[in-house]
Amino acid sequence: MRHETHDATLGMITAGIVGATGYTGVELMRLLAGHARVEVKLATSRELAGTAVAKHFPNLRGRFDLDFSAPDRAALGGCDVVFFATPHAVAMKSAARVLAGGARVIDLSADFRIRDIGCWEQWYGTAHECPELVSEAVYGLPETNRERIREARLVAVPGCYPTAIQLALLPLLENRLVDETRLIADAKSGVSGAGRKAAAEYLLCEASESISAYAVTGHRHHPEIVQGLETAAGGPVNLTFVPHLTPMIRGILATCYAPARDPGACGADLLRSAFERRYAGEPFVQVLPRGELPATREVRGSNVCEIAVHYNESTSTAIVLAAEDNLVKGAAGQAVQCMNIAFGWNESEGLEGIGLLP
Amino acid sequence: MRHETHDATLGMITAGIVGATGYTGVELMRLLAGHARVEVKLATSRELAGTAVAKHFPNLRGRFDLDFSAPDRAALGGCDVVFFATPHAVAMKSAARVLAGGARVIDLSADFRIRDIGCWEQWYGTAHECPELVSEAVYGLPETNRERIREARLVAVPGCYPTAIQLALLPLLENRLVDETRLIADAKSGVSGAGRKAAAEYLLCEASESISAYAVTGHRHHPEIVQGLETAAGGPVNLTFVPHLTPMIRGILATCYAPARDPGACGADLLRSAFERRYAGEPFVQVLPRGELPATREVRGSNVCEIAVHYNESTSTAIVLAAEDNLVKGAAGQAVQCMNIAFGWNESEGLEGIGLLP
Amino acid sequence: MRHETHDATLGMITAGIVGATGYTGVELMRLLAGHARVEVKLATSRELAGTAVAKHFPNLRGRFDLDFSAPDRAALGGCDVVFFATPHAVAMKSAARVLAGGARVIDLSADFRIRDIGCWEQWYGTAHECPELVSEAVYGLPETNRERIREARLVAVPGCYPTAIQLALLPLLENRLVDETRLIADAKSGVSGAGRKAAAEYLLCEASESISAYAVTGHRHHPEIVQGLETAAGGPVNLTFVPHLTPMIRGILATCYAPARDPGACGADLLRSAFERRYAGEPFVQVLPRGELPATREVRGSNVCEIAVHYNESTSTAIVLAAEDNLVKGAAGQAVQCMNIAFGWNESEGLEGIGLLP
Amino acid sequence: MRHETHDATLGMITAGIVGATGYTGVELMRLLAGHARVEVKLATSRELAGTAVAKHFPNLRGRFDLDFSAPDRAALGGCDVVFFATPHAVAMKSAARVLAGGARVIDLSADFRIRDIGCWEQWYGTAHECPELVSEAVYGLPETNRERIREARLVAVPGCYPTAIQLALLPLLENRLVDETRLIADAKSGVSGAGRKAAAEYLLCEASESISAYAVTGHRHHPEIVQGLETAAGGPVNLTFVPHLTPMIRGILATCYAPARDPGACGADLLRSAFERRYAGEPFVQVLPRGELPATREVRGSNVCEIAVHYNESTSTAIVLAAEDNLVKGAAGQAVQCMNIAFGWNESEGLEGIGLLP
Repeated sequence: MRHETHDATLGMITAGIVGATGYTGVELMRLLAGHARVEVKLATSRELAGTAVAKHFPNLRGRFDLDFSAPDRAALGGCDVVFFATPHAVAMKSAARVLAGGARVIDLSADFRIRDIGCWEQWYGTAHECPELVSEAVYGLPETNRERIREARLVAVPGCYPTAIQLALLPLLENRLVDETRLIADAKSGVSGAGRKAAAEYLLCEASESISAYAVTGHRHHPEIVQGLETAAGGPVNLTFVPHLTPMIRGILATCYAPARDPGACGADLLRSAFERRYAGEPFVQVLPRGELPATREVRGSNVCEIAVHYNESTSTAIVLAAEDNLVKGAAGQAVQCMNIAFGWNESEGLEGIGLLP
Repeated sequence: MRHETHDATLGMITAGIVGATGYTGVELMRLLAGHARVEVKLATSRELAGTAVAKHFPNLRGRFDLDFSAPDRAALGGCDVVFFATPHAVAMKSAARVLAGGARVIDLSADFRIRDIGCWEQWYGTAHECPELVSEAVYGLPETNRERIREARLVAVPGCYPTAIQLALLPLLENRLVDETRLIADAKSGVSGAGRKAAAEYLLCEASESISAYAVTGHRHHPEIVQGLETAAGGPVNLTFVPHLTPMIRGILATCYAPARDPGACGADLLRSAFERRYAGEPFVQVLPRGELPATREVRGSNVCEIAVHYNESTSTAIVLAAEDNLVKGAAGQAVQCMNIAFGWNESEGLEGIGLLP
Repeated sequence: MRHETHDATLGMITAGIVGATGYTGVELMRLLAGHARVEVKLATSRELAGTAVAKHFPNLRGRFDLDFSAPDRAALGGCDVVFFATPHAVAMKSAARVLAGGARVIDLSADFRIRDIGCWEQWYGTAHECPELVSEAVYGLPETNRERIREARLVAVPGCYPTAIQLALLPLLENRLVDETRLIADAKSGVSGAGRKAAAEYLLCEASESISAYAVTGHRHHPEIVQGLETAAGGPVNLTFVPHLTPMIRGILATCYAPARDPGACGADLLRSAFERRYAGEPFVQVLPRGELPATREVRGSNVCEIAVHYNESTSTAIVLAAEDNLVKGAAGQAVQCMNIAFGWNESEGLEGIGLLP
Repeated sequence: MRHETHDATLGMITAGIVGATGYTGVELMRLLAGHARVEVKLATSRELAGTAVAKHFPNLRGRFDLDFSAPDRAALGGCDVVFFATPHAVAMKSAARVLAGGARVIDLSADFRIRDIGCWEQWYGTAHECPELVSEAVYGLPETNRERIREARLVAVPGCYPTAIQLALLPLLENRLVDETRLIADAKSGVSGAGRKAAAEYLLCEASESISAYAVTGHRHHPEIVQGLETAAGGPVNLTFVPHLTPMIRGILATCYAPARDPGACGADLLRSAFERRYAGEPFVQVLPRGELPATREVRGSNVCEIAVHYNESTSTAIVLAAEDNLVKGAAGQAVQCMNIAFGWNESEGLEGIGLLP
């Protein structure tokens, strides 16, 4: 096994990025450029093969002397780690070959996140080509799965909505503090969550100076979120999830509402202390002090997820707010965090950048 | 009574605006400039007295040959209608004198909106100086109060959150479709809702590229909203209300959640038809066709409130989304609509401007 | 001649819009909806034929009960006026037929703006299919061409950059105040100037929070601007024109620099008075008072062009700033202004809407 | 001398920041948090003394366990380096005492930038209280002054406009390529350039969705820029400088125009090669390849200044565009760069962060 012969803890490892031309890809390259133990050897793009990475992403100018290359499974397998920053239904076609080559795989797409293959196929509208790896894949939410990530060959990193909403609701469910059949997640996402695709609805003239909900009748991330919440609750969970397109580039704010299971015993302090206990020691979850509220600007560019907990007495409702940068803790940063865990490094390596404020 | 001797239906009436230097004031002047029956005679501002209105608000250049004047209750009383576009606790000091002078008063502030004086005093932190007019004042939401507005001397126009949230929830409560003890309103407001005051938190560098909740533990508009909802429900209502500051100038989107009273009988079509019946014939409420969702950009600058209705089967939750321009249907436009009703004119007079898109 | 038999001054006329699915199209429909003398009978779109206009542009909901229809030259010819809000090289294929049907044509595209056919063909990369109409077409800048527009069958309305820059420089050239071989126009345009096309560079995530120049080596509007300036100067003009993509939806600000011809005699007051004289009586050009500067927000949604004039003594340079809404005075508003002139109506009809501020 | 006894090249040094509550202050703390050789020991603020730095700037939460303290010149003098991130006319009152205590001083304000005291006093409207240090102070533009910065006790770091415009024009002047009496700098700045002060004009509702020029008749940075340009030119320089407020948080784009001295001999390639030679080896100036243009989003959060060079043949005008992050290369990043030089470290230490894109 290559993992054994290559002593990754002692030197630099090599990384490949598949589908490096989107926002998750450039963010991954930004973070890896500052990571002392990783050298990005390959960045693949069918469309841009031969173009300098820094021409496509000028913020990387002078930092990567690398051209995009056509995807090549053999070359990828020769890396120590391969990140898939691809649309769904791409990683499932290549992951097995890349793993067989000896690389670990960290998939930022949805291909290996949902354990129920039928459910995945329904939401993603295609047959899953690699169901056998779904059961091996480890869900890459370090706050719930750190030990398994440590051993994983294949990590399925959750995206932006699932990360924010699960972090906001897990302590409530694990401690049986709320009625798990009536959860609500009202989530507000910056436009970069839609990726870099040239669709009219994401033009500045369409998406700025406006807020709107979308996918009210159902969103692909819903089953993934429910899967995580049910694991925490140890049973069925019902969730109303309404995503909103917010006129900003980066950031997700999830405002979650959950009815207290026992209104007489519930309260803001009780709730906050459950969160403080749950996330004590977590390097990237900040439970805010009483009276403070998260704002996406406070975590722009950083891997932090800010959480605040409130309780509305008159409706016996827990209100949990979670803010993250959708491209960092909601994508590339979390992938790096998983890599650090999987390779046995300091979990914060390469993730110490402070958010850009203002 | 001046109202009788002045035949306002036959010619131009004169209007005064108190506190015309904020965003509600300039929007009122924009709308009145296009109103065939109203001449703005006075625009008062203690601070800017003597300055040309068009110097302060250059979009009005060439349209108003008027200087701001110091407030003068006698002069105001000589107008046919006086709008208060002031912060709270100003109109209550002058309204009685202005009414006595013969003018009708349309107050865009909160001074006469809440019938429970003690509650008002608690939220606004000062003694109410004119409680006797509170009971006479008519709440200026045309969709619930049209007949009373027709006769009113003093109209208390609801603001942006109360308008959107009441319009979103009234049909559910009037038809007893939902559990009125578990209502949630997750509202997203553009920054103009905070007015033109120079506070650091509303600077472009603080408020753009970010979304955050505020006033989670209680907001001044909460009791006003609940008062309206309880009237509709005919009994007590409990509401969780979480306002959010959204990085855009104009617009409010209220995403409201309410548990179905009878999940077995409820459904999206049933809900939508209740809204369609309720708002049939309303000139400024648009219940959207199935499959469409409101966006604040669609009503920017117009007096329209767009509403969409959905139902989440798995949680038995009604989801109602309402979008309006907070400065128009949520303030100045609604004030003009109330004036039109009170003077017996076509309710849409001066309000036919189409939203600016993009 | 249909123009003679149809007494357009007495009643409503009918209008058709070709290519009504872009930003210029929706803006035209917004303005025409408020125009007392025009009924929009046709809005054509090959792609959206059969779709309700209000479904595509929800701000028009309730105002137009009209579906997009496939382009039909005969039907268009039956209108009193036809607006082309199409990309370049479309109007030239249909204008002759539409004119032959009896309609006047107001073209918002570039097809008939440049008198030098070879120059047009070079910049637009295709052969001109209707050169014979180029000489008949009247350039639709009312401030220079009002009398000819009055008689025109075919008006070629200048776009956003040409309007702002010509209005900013004409008085300098007409009065021979500056060295016409060294003109500079540094222009800043909102993103709507690029239209509604789904190109990656105009995504919110690409175009917001950034400013950049483009087309520094040459822009299609350059020859059109120079053509107008040379007419004013009565001889050759050299212009450096650098357009910039500015992170906002609407608005153009042109900052123009021109060396004084006679530094000893020049000065701010002399310059300003040349502008005041030139634009006295113009309904939509505002020469700002000394000390005030234009801002695009002051004209958002209105047909006004604001101009300020300064003089830098140390470099003997005139500085002229012009701000307009690129979709109004820079497109649809100017087209309506031309229509009003051509039909002998009040030039401001339907253009009295005040800019939306904030 | 403390500088001699403290071997700063071997370990951590201690830093103090005076006036750390503005945007320059927080950016400095963000950069210093990632600097391996600096420990921020003091952050002073008269107003916020006793408040945790991370409460005021939540992006620093978990990274600085420090409260703001009242300014204390003795304590500051005990630091190895003291940064003044204060408004003008503050550093001049304290710098001498802090220097006497043994610290080096890096002043980000304008107090020591202008050598002509009378000129400074005229523009800043107050008497200079420390003229004797003005002549000692070294102007902190590493690209022109690296050797002197190495020896400096007191560095006067240029701000955003002076940095971008000087970097854009220096190679033209040093090589006598242009007529130095007719320079134009049309500069576009993000709103953070105005600092964090709560003034109405910088509210989101005033400053977003608009662009406008300001200070057309004269700007404080003008004499500082001219001073630098004259040094490069070896003689008098005349400059028209028009700053514009641009609707974005960060970034400056300076579009500079200069008439070729010898039009016959000039050209784009000649100009570009002058820039390439001039900035070869500069770690933070990128002369872009032919055909590429700077955009402020490409340098957001990074210390890079991007420069592109063009030439307009018809007007014989050199066009140079320079983009930087006004808070980094235009303020805090440049201060850190100067510190690195002054302490003999790698000039890029702590400045390797890649810009955030998107």
